[in-house]
Amino acid sequence: MSRWVTLPDHVAEAEDALPQGFRAAGVACGLKPSGGIDLGLLVSDSPDTVSAARFTRSGVLAAPVVLCQERCRLDGLRAVVANSGNANAATGRRGIDDAAKMQGAAAMAAGVDPQRVAVASTGVIGVPLPTDPVVKGVLAARGELSAGGAEAFGESIHTTDRFPKRASVDVTLPGGTVRLTAQAKGAGMISPNFATMLCFVQTDAALQPETADLLLGVCVKRSFDRISVDGQLSTNDTAILMASGAGGVQVAPESADELRFGEALDTVLRRLALLIVRDGEGARRIGRVVVNGGHEPTVDTAARAVANSPLVKAALHGGDPNWGRIAQAVGGALRDTAPLPLDIWIEDVQVCAQGAAVPFDLPALEQAVSGEEVEYTVGLPGEGAETEVFFSDLSHDYVTINADYTT
Amino acid sequence: MSRWVTLPDHVAEAEDALPQGFRAAGVACGLKPSGGIDLGLLVSDSPDTVSAARFTRSGVLAAPVVLCQERCRLDGLRAVVANSGNANAATGRRGIDDAAKMQGAAAMAAGVDPQRVAVASTGVIGVPLPTDPVVKGVLAARGELSAGGAEAFGESIHTTDRFPKRASVDVTLPGGTVRLTAQAKGAGMISPNFATMLCFVQTDAALQPETADLLLGVCVKRSFDRISVDGQLSTNDTAILMASGAGGVQVAPESADELRFGEALDTVLRRLALLIVRDGEGARRIGRVVVNGGHEPTVDTAARAVANSPLVKAALHGGDPNWGRIAQAVGGALRDTAPLPLDIWIEDVQVCAQGAAVPFDLPALEQAVSGEEVEYTVGLPGEGAETEVFFSDLSHDYVTINADYTT
Repeated sequence: MSRWVTLPDHVAEAEDALPQGFRAAGVACGLKPSGGIDLGLLVSDSPDTVSAARFTRSGVLAAPVVLCQERCRLDGLRAVVANSGNANAATGRRGIDDAAKMQGAAAMAAGVDPQRVAVASTGVIGVPLPTDPVVKGVLAARGELSAGGAEAFGESIHTTDRFPKRASVDVTLPGGTVRLTAQAKGAGMISPNFATMLCFVQTDAALQPETADLLLGVCVKRSFDRISVDGQLSTNDTAILMASGAGGVQVAPESADELRFGEALDTVLRRLALLIVRDGEGARRIGRVVVNGGHEPTVDTAARAVANSPLVKAALHGGDPNWGRIAQAVGGALRDTAPLPLDIWIEDVQVCAQGAAVPFDLPALEQAVSGEEVEYTVGLPGEGAETEVFFSDLSHDYVTINADYTT
Repeated sequence: MSRWVTLPDHVAEAEDALPQGFRAAGVACGLKPSGGIDLGLLVSDSPDTVSAARFTRSGVLAAPVVLCQERCRLDGLRAVVANSGNANAATGRRGIDDAAKMQGAAAMAAGVDPQRVAVASTGVIGVPLPTDPVVKGVLAARGELSAGGAEAFGESIHTTDRFPKRASVDVTLPGGTVRLTAQAKGAGMISPNFATMLCFVQTDAALQPETADLLLGVCVKRSFDRISVDGQLSTNDTAILMASGAGGVQVAPESADELRFGEALDTVLRRLALLIVRDGEGARRIGRVVVNGGHEPTVDTAARAVANSPLVKAALHGGDPNWGRIAQAVGGALRDTAPLPLDIWIEDVQVCAQGAAVPFDLPALEQAVSGEEVEYTVGLPGEGAETEVFFSDLSHDYVTINADYTT
C-alpha cells in the first residue's frame, strides 16, 4: 500500500479472522445520528491474557482514559468496550461514572472482572455520554461476539473515517505461526504522543507482560507517534495490545521470537498509522519528512514543524514545489539559530544547500511533487540523529469537515 | 473598526499625508507578474532622524534582515527600500549581495549613507532577486517621492493582501501635536515574534534613540507579537520606527509626552495588527483568545495553541460552537498536566467549569459565535498572569491561496 512500509519475509497477509481466543462485535446503539455502528466489544476468552496500553499525554484527559489508568489492570486486560459518537471528554465527575457504567456492563457481558475491561470513546467533546443506549448496546454486542467480528468492531470506533483501518497477518516464528490483528480509527485531531486516537491489537501468541509493554512501547513510538494530520493531540488516544496465548506459541523475552514478533507488530502498526494519515480529514496526498542532524530533540522539532505547517500542507495538496516553505517552517521552529545551513531535498531533487537555493531541474521537481506520496528530506548540522514524520495535506475538505462538526 | 482597539482621547484620525520630513513613493518595477506596484522607497529629509527596529527570530533569516542587522545604523535609519514579489530568503551569499545593491541604489536615490538605509523584502522564498528591475525601480521611485506617497508605498509591500493596512493619526501632546503614520503588510505566514511581516512607522516628533527603541519594543510585543494567521513565523518580519523631529515637538524620556505618544503608537500598531488578522489569507472572521492563570509562559503557550489550532480555526470559520476543541487545544499544548481544571467562556457564555461541561444556553452560544469577532476566555489555575492572541479563521480560501502560490 505504501513504499514506506513493507512486509518482512516472515510475515504474511492473513484472512480477517481474529487470533485464537478472541471474539468481537460491533452494533448500532444510537449514539451516531447516522444510525451507524457505534458500540464495539472485544473479548479474550483466555484467563491468562496479557496486555499493554499507551494513552494520550494531553492535559485534558477523557473520562475513559482516566478510568483505564486508575482502575484497570493494564497488563491483564481481557476485554475492550469502545464507542464512537461521543468522546466522554471534559465531562467531569459524571463522565467517570458513565465510563464506569460502560465498564461494568462490558464486564458482565464478557464474564470478566471490571478491572480487566478497558474503556475507550471517540467523538464530540464536552457532551455527557448517554449510558442507557451504551448499556443496551453492550448487551446486544454480547450476542454478536464472534471470531469474525473484527470488521464490525473496527467500524464501531469510526468517526470521520472514510475507510477501515485493519490489519491481519500471520507471523512465522521458530516455535510456530501466530496471528496478529489490529483495528484502528483516526482521521482528525491526530498528532499522537505515545498513542493514536484508538488502536486495538490482538495476538494468540503468549507474551510476558513485560514483553507486551516493551514491544507496544517501541512500536507505538515508531508508528502512531510519527504521524500528524493536524498537529492536534487528542484527549482520548488509546492503544491496547492483548495477547491471549491461545495459539500455544511462546514469545520469550530477548529471543529471536521476540525480535521477529516485534518486526511484525512494527509493520502492522506502521501500516495502520499510514492508513490514518492517508485518511486524514480531507486528505488527498501524504508526505514524509525525514530530518537528520546532530541533535535528537532538534531534528524532532524540525520534522514536526514541517509536518504541521499549514503552508507546507497546502503546497503538498496543490502539488506546488514551493520548497521555501520547508525552509520557513524549520527556521520558524528553530528560533534564534540563524544562520542555519539547511539542506533540502524533495524526493531526489536537491533544492537548497547550506541554506541557499541551488539550481534544480524544475520539471523533475514538479514531477517529484505530483505523486500520491511525497518525500522531503532536511539536513541540519551534525550527524547521528534522524527522525521521520508522516503527514497529510491540507485540503478544502478538511475545512468543510471541521467547520461544521457539532451542528 | 474593532471593539478590541479604541482611540485614546488625545489621539485623532488624520489625513493620509506623511509626518513632516518624510516623503515616500511606490512604483511597479516588474517583480510581480501582475504588473502591480512592487517597489517602495521611504525617505526622511532630516539628518537627525532617529529610529528603532525589530526583526524576525527565525533560524532562516532573509538576506535583507541579515543586511539590516549587520550593516545598518538601526538607531539612525533615514530611508527604507522595500519590495514585494520576492523575499530574497534562502538565497545565500548572492542574496546578501543583491540586498546590498538594493541598499546602495536607495542610498544614492535618497542622498544618504548606505548604512542609514534599511532593506525589506517579501514574497516567494528561495528565488534569487532580480536586481536590475529593482535598481531601475529605485530610480523611478526617487522621482515620485512626496508627502502623499504613503498609499503607493504601502501598496508596494503587498503580496496576498486584500486591502491596505495604513494608519494616520495626530497625537496631542503638552508640547504640541505630532503626526504618526504607519504602513503594514501581511496576510499569510503570520505568527510574528517581535515583529510582523513588514511595518514601517513614521513620526515628526523628536525622540531619543533609546525612547524609540523602548516604545517600539513595548508596542510590538502588544500588537504584532499577539497575532497569528497560520502560526508560521516568517523569514522576513521587519518593523521600523522612524522619527524625523521635523515638527519640533520633543518627546522626552520618562515624561508625560512619552506616555501619551506611547499610547498612540500602541493604538496604531494594534490597529494594524488586527487589520493583518482580518486580512488573514482567506479569513472571514477573527477571534481573540484571552488566557489567564498563575504562570506567564503557560498562559502564553495555551493562548497560542488555541489560536493556531486548525480545528478551533475551522470551527470559528463555520460559526460552530464546538468548545471541546478549545479544551483539546489547551490540553494538547500543556502535556502531562492532567487533570487541568479549565474554565472556558465563549463571549459571555460559560461552557466549561473546572474541566467539566456546564449546562449552557445553546441559542445564546450560537449567537455568540455568529459575529465577525468572537472572544474566547480560558481560565487556568492561579492568577496574576494574562495574555491574549488575535487570530483568523481557517477557510477554503486559505487552502486555495496556499495550494498554488508559486506556480
